[in-house]
Amino acid sequence: MAVYTHVSTEEIFEFMASYDEGEVISFKAIAEGVENSNYILQTNTGFYILTLYEKRVNPDDLPFFLGLMGHLVRKGCNSATPIGDRQGNILRTLCGRPAALISFLPGLSVSRPVPNHCFQLGQEMARMHRAASDFNLSRENALSVAGWQKLVNQCEGRADEVMTGLKDLLYNEMTFLKENWPETLPEGIIHGDLFPDNVFFLGGKLSGLIDYYFACNDILVYDMAIAINAWCFERDGAFNVTKASRLLRGYAGVRPLSDDEIAAMPILCRGAAFRFLLSRLYDWLNRVEGALVQVKNPAEYINKLKFHRAVKNSREYGLDI
Amino acid sequence: MAVYTHVSTEEIFEFMASYDEGEVISFKAIAEGVENSNYILQTNTGFYILTLYEKRVNPDDLPFFLGLMGHLVRKGCNSATPIGDRQGNILRTLCGRPAALISFLPGLSVSRPVPNHCFQLGQEMARMHRAASDFNLSRENALSVAGWQKLVNQCEGRADEVMTGLKDLLYNEMTFLKENWPETLPEGIIHGDLFPDNVFFLGGKLSGLIDYYFACNDILVYDMAIAINAWCFERDGAFNVTKASRLLRGYAGVRPLSDDEIAAMPILCRGAAFRFLLSRLYDWLNRVEGALVQVKNPAEYINKLKFHRAVKNSREYGLDI
Repeated sequence: MAVYTHVSTEEIFEFMASYDEGEVISFKAIAEGVENSNYILQTNTGFYILTLYEKRVNPDDLPFFLGLMGHLVRKGCNSATPIGDRQGNILRTLCGRPAALISFLPGLSVSRPVPNHCFQLGQEMARMHRAASDFNLSRENALSVAGWQKLVNQCEGRADEVMTGLKDLLYNEMTFLKENWPETLPEGIIHGDLFPDNVFFLGGKLSGLIDYYFACNDILVYDMAIAINAWCFERDGAFNVTKASRLLRGYAGVRPLSDDEIAAMPILCRGAAFRFLLSRLYDWLNRVEGALVQVKNPAEYINKLKFHRAVKNSREYGLDI
Repeated sequence: MAVYTHVSTEEIFEFMASYDEGEVISFKAIAEGVENSNYILQTNTGFYILTLYEKRVNPDDLPFFLGLMGHLVRKGCNSATPIGDRQGNILRTLCGRPAALISFLPGLSVSRPVPNHCFQLGQEMARMHRAASDFNLSRENALSVAGWQKLVNQCEGRADEVMTGLKDLLYNEMTFLKENWPETLPEGIIHGDLFPDNVFFLGGKLSGLIDYYFACNDILVYDMAIAINAWCFERDGAFNVTKASRLLRGYAGVRPLSDDEIAAMPILCRGAAFRFLLSRLYDWLNRVEGALVQVKNPAEYINKLKFHRAVKNSREYGLDI
């Protein structure tokens, strides 16, 4: 839950005076996302999301994130998109922070995805990968192999506070991933954070993707490995192969997968589980009592990583049929 | 900031299936109020607020609060109002908590009220008092003289942790108020919490009052004493007599004030300052590190109480012209 920066009525009126979006008639802080301050804003012409970017977002990355959202919408993807002021600026300043007015995307995220949700997510992810292929900016993934090593270095001294043996697990996994991480798979822009929170559905149909603030250039099917981790485990920790199979098939129906991409799924899933284990572990070890952000326990991703370490080939993800 | 109870997509769909308000197309937790969990909900017919009542609200009081809101709207007041399900129930249960669907009231609260805002607030408060006069339920004010005594008893042992001499101040003020609190002034239903947060404006015009969860039966002009404390002091602590004068005149233009009501303003303002000093002191002394609710420092109301103690007559509130 976010909302760090309080924007007063007077400040929002002054900010919106530069836009052609009508008169502000309602403005409420929403508890969405963990990185930024978000408001829902109503004018006499419609609803919008106003986002103030807090310190975890690098301002230099904002032209990439906001430009990508606009690019995807222009190419026909369902996504929230930034709205320009009268001078065409999509990146503004409010209360001393970078800020953007974003279109309001109807839809709700699902708490308990069923296989058909996963199928639609796979389709939309592939459409997004294709649509982003001619976007003219790029952004390195700060949370890929080199970034993991930094987090391992920062966390290993205290990792065993969370679970005995975690330090060794981190060390062994880091060594394995560094030596075996694929280097020749197709790359492009990925969303990087396709958790159920960031995917909206309306009447059972996927209505759009939100929160592109981890988007970056990386192995395309690494996006699917993240989604397998986020969508295909039940609450009791069991892996649901039907969901994974539907996700992969939805994707492959729009952007066919090569044999190499299929064969790489186990290590990509290990890498994705490792990435979220590390970022959650870092946040957990550095959590501040009383902070508004709810820190997620890293244990969930220790278990997911262990699952993927035991996977022998991609058939176990439902890719054999 | 609130949002205590997480409502899943599946739970909100099931809940809204009992209403004739259309299909849910968006649902976001909002950071509004400190007592309850609030969501903004969009259907294909409009926007709503969904409130789940948390433990600080006594469920037995909800028929009074919700019934009052409906009564006021039927009498032409601008207020949010509860919406019934197909069976006409306005009070429901969701996630094990009492819950109500409330109409969405456009408007924004002002952070820096000007005298005209105070004038309009006075008018609307008087309209509300008149409109509530034939409401058929009543509710005792748990935070009047007897309630203050309970809070004094609970806080006095630790009051000097906040300010040296506060224990004596509480004791002396309690004694004075008990002996001098007016007993013959006109009573009725008051809002009880008319802070700027709970008053919406649209294009400079008051668009409505929200958050009736402190409404109760009490001395009518005690509501104005609360508002004088909440609206008529500047950020540096200075009293703004112009604002108070406009507030009182706005009120008196709709519901004329008797000489007794005018003469009682100094003690009513002392009582109102004391009430918020006590509740903030209690919350401050009992605050939990890490809780989501932001606890307000009681010092602001110590200063306001001291101001009112030095007031000699109602002319000092701008009632002499």
